Amino acid sequence: MAKVGIIMGSDSDLAVMSKAADILDKLGVDYEMTIISAHREPDVFFEYAKSAETKGFKVIIAGAGMAAHLPGMCAAIFPMPVIGVPMHTTSLGGRDSLYSIVQMPSGIPVATVAINGGANAGILAAKILATSDEALLGRLKEYSEELKDQVVAKADKLHEIGHKEYLKQK
Amino acid sequence: MAKVGIIMGSDSDLAVMSKAADILDKLGVDYEMTIISAHREPDVFFEYAKSAETKGFKVIIAGAGMAAHLPGMCAAIFPMPVIGVPMHTTSLGGRDSLYSIVQMPSGIPVATVAINGGANAGILAAKILATSDEALLGRLKEYSEELKDQVVAKADKLHEIGHKEYLKQK
Amino acid sequence: MAKVGIIMGSDSDLAVMSKAADILDKLGVDYEMTIISAHREPDVFFEYAKSAETKGFKVIIAGAGMAAHLPGMCAAIFPMPVIGVPMHTTSLGGRDSLYSIVQMPSGIPVATVAINGGANAGILAAKILATSDEALLGRLKEYSEELKDQVVAKADKLHEIGHKEYLKQK
Amino acid sequence: MAKVGIIMGSDSDLAVMSKAADILDKLGVDYEMTIISAHREPDVFFEYAKSAETKGFKVIIAGAGMAAHLPGMCAAIFPMPVIGVPMHTTSLGGRDSLYSIVQMPSGIPVATVAINGGANAGILAAKILATSDEALLGRLKEYSEELKDQVVAKADKLHEIGHKEYLKQK
Amino acid sequence: MAKVGIIMGSDSDLAVMSKAADILDKLGVDYEMTIISAHREPDVFFEYAKSAETKGFKVIIAGAGMAAHLPGMCAAIFPMPVIGVPMHTTSLGGRDSLYSIVQMPSGIPVATVAINGGANAGILAAKILATSDEALLGRLKEYSEELKDQVVAKADKLHEIGHKEYLKQK
Amino acid sequence: MAKVGIIMGSDSDLAVMSKAADILDKLGVDYEMTIISAHREPDVFFEYAKSAETKGFKVIIAGAGMAAHLPGMCAAIFPMPVIGVPMHTTSLGGRDSLYSIVQMPSGIPVATVAINGGANAGILAAKILATSDEALLGRLKEYSEELKDQVVAKADKLHEIGHKEYLKQK
Amino acid sequence: MAKVGIIMGSDSDLAVMSKAADILDKLGVDYEMTIISAHREPDVFFEYAKSAETKGFKVIIAGAGMAAHLPGMCAAIFPMPVIGVPMHTTSLGGRDSLYSIVQMPSGIPVATVAINGGANAGILAAKILATSDEALLGRLKEYSEELKDQVVAKADKLHEIGHKEYLKQK
Amino acid sequence: MAKVGIIMGSDSDLAVMSKAADILDKLGVDYEMTIISAHREPDVFFEYAKSAETKGFKVIIAGAGMAAHLPGMCAAIFPMPVIGVPMHTTSLGGRDSLYSIVQMPSGIPVATVAINGGANAGILAAKILATSDEALLGRLKEYSEELKDQVVAKADKLHEIGHKEYLKQK
Repeated sequence: MAKVGIIMGSDSDLAVMSKAADILDKLGVDYEMTIISAHREPDVFFEYAKSAETKGFKVIIAGAGMAAHLPGMCAAIFPMPVIGVPMHTTSLGGRDSLYSIVQMPSGIPVATVAINGGANAGILAAKILATSDEALLGRLKEYSEELKDQVVAKADKLHEIGHKEYLKQK
Repeated sequence: MAKVGIIMGSDSDLAVMSKAADILDKLGVDYEMTIISAHREPDVFFEYAKSAETKGFKVIIAGAGMAAHLPGMCAAIFPMPVIGVPMHTTSLGGRDSLYSIVQMPSGIPVATVAINGGANAGILAAKILATSDEALLGRLKEYSEELKDQVVAKADKLHEIGHKEYLKQK
Repeated sequence: MAKVGIIMGSDSDLAVMSKAADILDKLGVDYEMTIISAHREPDVFFEYAKSAETKGFKVIIAGAGMAAHLPGMCAAIFPMPVIGVPMHTTSLGGRDSLYSIVQMPSGIPVATVAINGGANAGILAAKILATSDEALLGRLKEYSEELKDQVVAKADKLHEIGHKEYLKQK
Repeated sequence: MAKVGIIMGSDSDLAVMSKAADILDKLGVDYEMTIISAHREPDVFFEYAKSAETKGFKVIIAGAGMAAHLPGMCAAIFPMPVIGVPMHTTSLGGRDSLYSIVQMPSGIPVATVAINGGANAGILAAKILATSDEALLGRLKEYSEELKDQVVAKADKLHEIGHKEYLKQK
Repeated sequence: MAKVGIIMGSDSDLAVMSKAADILDKLGVDYEMTIISAHREPDVFFEYAKSAETKGFKVIIAGAGMAAHLPGMCAAIFPMPVIGVPMHTTSLGGRDSLYSIVQMPSGIPVATVAINGGANAGILAAKILATSDEALLGRLKEYSEELKDQVVAKADKLHEIGHKEYLKQK
Repeated sequence: MAKVGIIMGSDSDLAVMSKAADILDKLGVDYEMTIISAHREPDVFFEYAKSAETKGFKVIIAGAGMAAHLPGMCAAIFPMPVIGVPMHTTSLGGRDSLYSIVQMPSGIPVATVAINGGANAGILAAKILATSDEALLGRLKEYSEELKDQVVAKADKLHEIGHKEYLKQK
Repeated sequence: MAKVGIIMGSDSDLAVMSKAADILDKLGVDYEMTIISAHREPDVFFEYAKSAETKGFKVIIAGAGMAAHLPGMCAAIFPMPVIGVPMHTTSLGGRDSLYSIVQMPSGIPVATVAINGGANAGILAAKILATSDEALLGRLKEYSEELKDQVVAKADKLHEIGHKEYLKQK
Repeated sequence: MAKVGIIMGSDSDLAVMSKAADILDKLGVDYEMTIISAHREPDVFFEYAKSAETKGFKVIIAGAGMAAHLPGMCAAIFPMPVIGVPMHTTSLGGRDSLYSIVQMPSGIPVATVAINGGANAGILAAKILATSDEALLGRLKEYSEELKDQVVAKADKLHEIGHKEYLKQK
């Protein structure tokens, strides 16, 4: 039974939201991903949000752009954490999405991550589940070690070949 | 039967939204005003938005601040015009409210007015109804004349007493 | 007799404003579209705005960029609703257009839609006319159903082929 | 044993962060609150962040203003969720705090709430714990009902006394 | 015969625009000041702008706030320089006024000064006239000397009494 | 003897500043154009600004980007009008240039035009000179007619071929 | 012989700039403070900047607001570090000052501190001098200890009296 | 022994940070460059910052993007100057990086340069060292002369071939 629901308002958000799915795959967390528009199909949306707890979801990750209402409306209905992913937008760079998601009124928080921060949304969902799942917590720590090793490898490469050569190889 | 519904997410919006009511009173347009939170009572909100057409509303004026979802969610459900009033906010000056209301995705417009533009929301509602109501259109034109007369009176006063005296009297 | 006038300050706005025309075509609403610059030909503009009511327009859609005065100046003259479409701009992303259109002073509202929101301007014009046109209201509801069906189809496709395959096909 | 750590960079953040404590009190969640500056006492901070898991914390709520590094640096060390509260600032309205907290790089999410959103940080912490605590989830649902009842009461009052009287009583 | 016209959209702009008048008084430049709203009395405005050249104006100073169309619309009609003064606004700090005034399309410049820069608008008008008026140019140079002397006097006072005492006396 | 000096801080500004030169060519106004950096060669800059009046300049057009000090420093030295052209910048879109140019302190105005508004700077310089040059004023009025004719021609084309065909031909 | 020059464009900047002086007093660093306007007295300014090295200054701290040219123009002339302090401004919150100071072109850096960051400018000047002054470096380390002790004392107080009592005492 | 440490949070910052290295090479200042992430390897970072004084560093140049904590955290530990380089970012243009670096709290300054200002960071580091190194100061003055000569050469070319030809050759 999937513990994480991943939703987005439009398939234009899919590239970003897929990063959330990919990291959950890597961390061994089940999820269900779908496209739901709070604006274009409010009934479908309401039904989804109301039944999410019964379906066993513990966290919902919702991505949306512009006047991004999907995460906040989820948080108004679903009683457990909702993670909001503000999409980059051409005109306002994602400020519109960010403000529409993070500036929620008192009582209805959305756990907001960076603009286009799909991977971080997945990691945050895993961290939330890891508060009661030691094995998952262990996998998260391993993942942190990987991140560290990647930086160390890059630093080693820089020391070895110098910045001029490094830039050429990029 | 009221043709205009005026709603706001919180009673902290009442001072601004009352200006919409006052101008509709002046223009002889019936309205119903209430407080409805899409975030704190989504069921009440959904019921309101779905029944609004049946109740006879032709226009809904919705005011909201911060992550202002109320106007956009109304527009997702109510099939006639929704006017959005972005509230001024302490931290972001109302940019958050403005972007959350005006940056609606294709298909679901919200007719957005200025930050704290309660009076203009009322006038816009009347203009919308005036597209099929000659008498109301007449009253709107009279109101425009009043606005003009007020400016003329101020200009006359300035010419008469000069700017130094005018500033003292303010 | 056309009920909607569509104007823009420059032919560089045509791609966006054509979306308003296209949606009105789809919804069966007559319109007249032209290019008028309040800045470069103020006399032509004034004549247009003053005669718009006599020509039978019930709504004017005005698109403009940068210091976008066209919608607001229309609203100063035409007594029925004016819808403003702020154009995206290279340097300020359309904030200049948006602020110049939405921040109208009390008494002279412009119904503002999203940056580059040409389609939404057309839909809003139709919604305004639909307040007194049941048949048009019906067509708007059908259009909403289409929007919903499009999302459902995308969601079905995502469930069927998975996000990795979906991204490849985009 | 407290499951939530509440920290802030300065006692000027205390009024906002106390709201997180107050809501956790109300929801029956134990917490420990202290003042720790990542900038002024990096050693103390590092020690705190490294020992937080051992002390039994499942969530850390970190508030900070301006170049707000405290939440992000916590998230770099503590393996479970860190909630960031951006403080309002005089010059930039809290945009500096918000961007410094929410725009974390891939791999290190901070669950960001609204500017000055202390109460929402507390609620979000409770929602995170509620993913594995049915009793707490129940209390969160009761709290949601309270929020709804408050809005309903305000709406009833508005209907009863009208907006002019309501504004006078505020 | 006055060579400078000073106009503003509302008497709320008078405190700022009076500074333009005061500096022109000081520099011995005749002006006429009035209140004209391009939005609330477009006919009065058009008549003013069209007759301004005949009346002998060489420069128009126009102040306006929010969606500030007055300077730009003047510049569309009056063939000599128009100076725009963007008013400070509560919600957007005057960015709305500034962008609405300065971001004019190619062909129709407005000489824009700082937000609330009434005095500078007056000085700029005098500088423009001084391109063909040696006596006025002389008075402008004297005024520059005064500005310099004021700074020198403040520097002297600071050296004499020290910064602690200086701050106390402010 | 040239009446207009055109300067820029870097040859990266040349494409924009050439538009000022081109329009002055068209309007029959002599100018001198050079590259001067207030930051990289302050002595050269000071000498230029101090001798500008003697050389016969009546107006200086100064373009600069980022921390754009060139126009303001000119205005601190040259006693007649300085027109500032803020350059578009990659990171801040030209807001940095705009604020650095337009937000001058009381006493030292810079006549600021739009971001990248080289052509408008040229026109504004001509308008300033036209306050004492009837022939130039006449040429400016002819230029305005040309602008109007261009819009009329585009409107005619749109009416003739329709927006779909017009878009194809662009 | 003073090693640090502190300058500001106006005595309205004195409250902020005095904090730089006070911290240098505390750290035992000699300084000279004066008021110099690059805009109102460019000759005085140039003379100051050119003679600063001869007078023995190793660092200049320059504060300025709005179109803040003072720090950047210093950096164009003085060959050692210039620290810029952007002043808070009413309309733009200090963004104008910040961008005018920090966005310097390649070749002419200004070491920019936070908006109104007078104290930090003083500390940074001391840190610069401490690169060749072991005793001063020692005093800076002691100062850092003081900062740490202040936080620890506040944390202790919070633990002792609780956040409710702490807030009352503020 | 290198006196300057150059660090960056990611190899995506290398192109910008290499400019700091290149200018230090040119000015004959030894440096050590590496990649260190305060977020992904906090222990490595802490160790680096704590040992930097012992290794002989007098200045650290730290570049970072988005929620850019690296410079500020360095400044919290290293007692001598830290220069921060805010990276350009896709969504917010580098405002996020800039605010995260420049808006440091009182007591912990970061000497901030322009967005992507890698070269200026290198020059500033050299200027700091030049406060106690006459030979380096001399090389900095020569570099300033070079900058001046480059501008003069460009101005000469412009005078010689005219702006139309110059633009063609670019």
